[in-house]
Amino acid sequence: MASKPSIPKGTRDFSPAEVAKRQYIIQVIKSNFEKFGFQPIETPSFENSETLMGKYGEEGDRLIFKILNSGDYLAKANATHLEAKDSTKLTASISEKALRYDLTVPFARYVVQHQNEIEFPFKRYQIQPVWRADRPQKGRFREFFQCDADVVGSTSLWQEVELVQLYDGVFTAIGLNGVTIKINNRKILSGIAEVIGASDKLIDFTVALDKLDKIGEDGVKKEMIEKGISETAIAKVQPLFIFTGTFSEKINQLSGLLADSVEGMKGVEELRFICDKVTALGLTTAILDLDVTLARGLNYYTGAIFEVSAPAGVAMGSIGGGGRYDDLTGIFGLKNMSGVGISFGLDRIYLVVEELGLFPNAVTANSQALFINYGENEAFYAMKAIKELRQSGIKVELYPDNAKLAKQFQHADKRNIPFAVMAGDQEMNSNSYTLKNLSTGEQKSLSLDELKKVLA
Amino acid sequence: MASKPSIPKGTRDFSPAEVAKRQYIIQVIKSNFEKFGFQPIETPSFENSETLMGKYGEEGDRLIFKILNSGDYLAKANATHLEAKDSTKLTASISEKALRYDLTVPFARYVVQHQNEIEFPFKRYQIQPVWRADRPQKGRFREFFQCDADVVGSTSLWQEVELVQLYDGVFTAIGLNGVTIKINNRKILSGIAEVIGASDKLIDFTVALDKLDKIGEDGVKKEMIEKGISETAIAKVQPLFIFTGTFSEKINQLSGLLADSVEGMKGVEELRFICDKVTALGLTTAILDLDVTLARGLNYYTGAIFEVSAPAGVAMGSIGGGGRYDDLTGIFGLKNMSGVGISFGLDRIYLVVEELGLFPNAVTANSQALFINYGENEAFYAMKAIKELRQSGIKVELYPDNAKLAKQFQHADKRNIPFAVMAGDQEMNSNSYTLKNLSTGEQKSLSLDELKKVLA
Repeated sequence: MASKPSIPKGTRDFSPAEVAKRQYIIQVIKSNFEKFGFQPIETPSFENSETLMGKYGEEGDRLIFKILNSGDYLAKANATHLEAKDSTKLTASISEKALRYDLTVPFARYVVQHQNEIEFPFKRYQIQPVWRADRPQKGRFREFFQCDADVVGSTSLWQEVELVQLYDGVFTAIGLNGVTIKINNRKILSGIAEVIGASDKLIDFTVALDKLDKIGEDGVKKEMIEKGISETAIAKVQPLFIFTGTFSEKINQLSGLLADSVEGMKGVEELRFICDKVTALGLTTAILDLDVTLARGLNYYTGAIFEVSAPAGVAMGSIGGGGRYDDLTGIFGLKNMSGVGISFGLDRIYLVVEELGLFPNAVTANSQALFINYGENEAFYAMKAIKELRQSGIKVELYPDNAKLAKQFQHADKRNIPFAVMAGDQEMNSNSYTLKNLSTGEQKSLSLDELKKVLA
Repeated sequence: MASKPSIPKGTRDFSPAEVAKRQYIIQVIKSNFEKFGFQPIETPSFENSETLMGKYGEEGDRLIFKILNSGDYLAKANATHLEAKDSTKLTASISEKALRYDLTVPFARYVVQHQNEIEFPFKRYQIQPVWRADRPQKGRFREFFQCDADVVGSTSLWQEVELVQLYDGVFTAIGLNGVTIKINNRKILSGIAEVIGASDKLIDFTVALDKLDKIGEDGVKKEMIEKGISETAIAKVQPLFIFTGTFSEKINQLSGLLADSVEGMKGVEELRFICDKVTALGLTTAILDLDVTLARGLNYYTGAIFEVSAPAGVAMGSIGGGGRYDDLTGIFGLKNMSGVGISFGLDRIYLVVEELGLFPNAVTANSQALFINYGENEAFYAMKAIKELRQSGIKVELYPDNAKLAKQFQHADKRNIPFAVMAGDQEMNSNSYTLKNLSTGEQKSLSLDELKKVLA
């Protein structure tokens, strides 16, 4: 191989510094998931194709990575499709497995497959990579981690309350203060659709309404009319154009607007419960806001819809989202299993934390000190100390070769190791170690116990 | 989908209890890797096919999972191979990517690709899944984790010394006392091959010699002769049939046996260095043993060869292995990069730790207490306590629904949650909480502060 090797587009190598930072965020998310009673599961990277195909729409099916059958796969290939060179149709006969596309469908499969072992309500979290054959672009990868927490088997709205608290807990712990947790409810959207008298225009309506800040009330109304929403309908939802105030003031406005919609009023009551409880219990740093333009996942969400945006001033799409779905496991034959869940966008959270300089300095898997190698006897003397330090949990290492001193110190410098320990004849004779602070240049002669204290 | 969904053969779902136990072992390995100065990297799950193909022999090529190209893959398929229905040859034109087969080749690729950013010697660890289209059988899976630590860029034997200590550190921390770290050296094996005058018979020789315990000296010699090793040759290595004593006694015997082999004597010196240093520094619970029949990885190991076996009495193959390879990155065009590394067999270690009952009870992601739900007001009172407990890092949860008490207690029981907290009218009036120990049945009335102390 003449040229430098490379990796497939849309994938990434992570250096030690990057792994340490990613693990830090994951660790915060995990520990909060567990504090809230969620327990981890893991599912295989690939599933049987029939588990995944048809679950994400036609576009999703296309973006699923398929694994070629092993062995003489052409022997069992469908002859007609092969003859016709029909790639799409041939796939089913030469590929039985596919890489998971998200964590939700494998979770639904897990719940149905293990329903007899699971004690419901089942609170699970899952932090694993997923794969999508999407066109790679800035911030969009073909392999990326999802971090999901879901509860299935209960319709209790306390879960929604807790999920809001969970977002607050994670982002507070990371130091990302002031995130906005936007909430809406599928039933509110259904109510609005009833009021405007056109459920097929719902998306056009919310997309236009979302531009209120940018293009103003007249601009939004103009766009709505262009999309075929009647002036009468727009007049009916006039309150949404001056939709301001606290969460509970907004709820009261909605309550008036949707008074004639049974479904809409159910949404109002659900939102009121969540808002009341969250407010009474208090959030630490996050802001809860009602956003009627929030319309993600309309095809599967049936109750609450969540989306988290980064603190004001940080240009970044949503860094989390989720909602309630009434029939998670129906696709695998288990009916009436309501669930609600949220997801954290690891890559985007990473970028925001990096941009705001919020990674603690201690987030590194780096050694605390490099012992300089002066030759076999000195190295042995160093190794005795190294062994003890490691047993105390301190990360230290010996430069493996008796190389020139300048080279060894350069190594510590390039690796950002904060201390060097020197131990030659003099130290060996006095049973001591010379510790050098590599940023200040300061040197001290220490006993092993003292060394342990300084490096701990 | 009428029938229950399933997962591909050779893959596994991991339940919360299993994930917690696996994470416990991984955490011990990680923290020891880092104490020894190794730093984490991560590479993509799939690599360009040319990175992997041809690196593991013909058998390996067959066992690599290939990913079907997205879109109209047949449009670019090689017409000749398609016509001939030659699956093996067609693969290259319809699949550009493949799932990684181990962590070593991706590591070599990483080192070459990032050689200008890496400061050598480079000590990296990597804990990630790998995939092999092997026939699944007991203890062999198509998706499994590898846990590798390697150093590249130095030939120093101190690394071998440290890797022995690292094995000792990990297995001691897990409580798996008395593992045997078997060591050999490729150069010793080359020396033996010289002495028996037939390097092509080396494997037959070591395989036969390995049976000494089972079939005795006569049996082994009979097998050697059947394999075409001459009686003269066997006579020359007679010391190997009574190869006992301490590590350094064994080295002395080898030193006599291999006196005429330059290569063999180099191996003797290397082993002597490692043995002397490891012995002088001391191992905590592991045993280091010289095993001349250890001949794994003959195609790539060039110096030390390691293999770890479970403590006596546990029937399990090797639970770790590794060695030194002088040309890790040569396959990608970067010459003279010596490396040495070891690997931990996560699945087997898990089985041994389980069999010996060594998992600490605390290894669980489970909640400490379930708050019983008596209705909306009581649940709100509970949630105030829950919020504070979680902020103190305590894992607690509310039963989401106001279900029958028996059902709620049964839920705690089935989930092995150790405590229930009850708070109804009486507790709300006295601002207290009733804590019930679910294994003893004992109940206590506590303030929130007291509750925090008990559950912490």
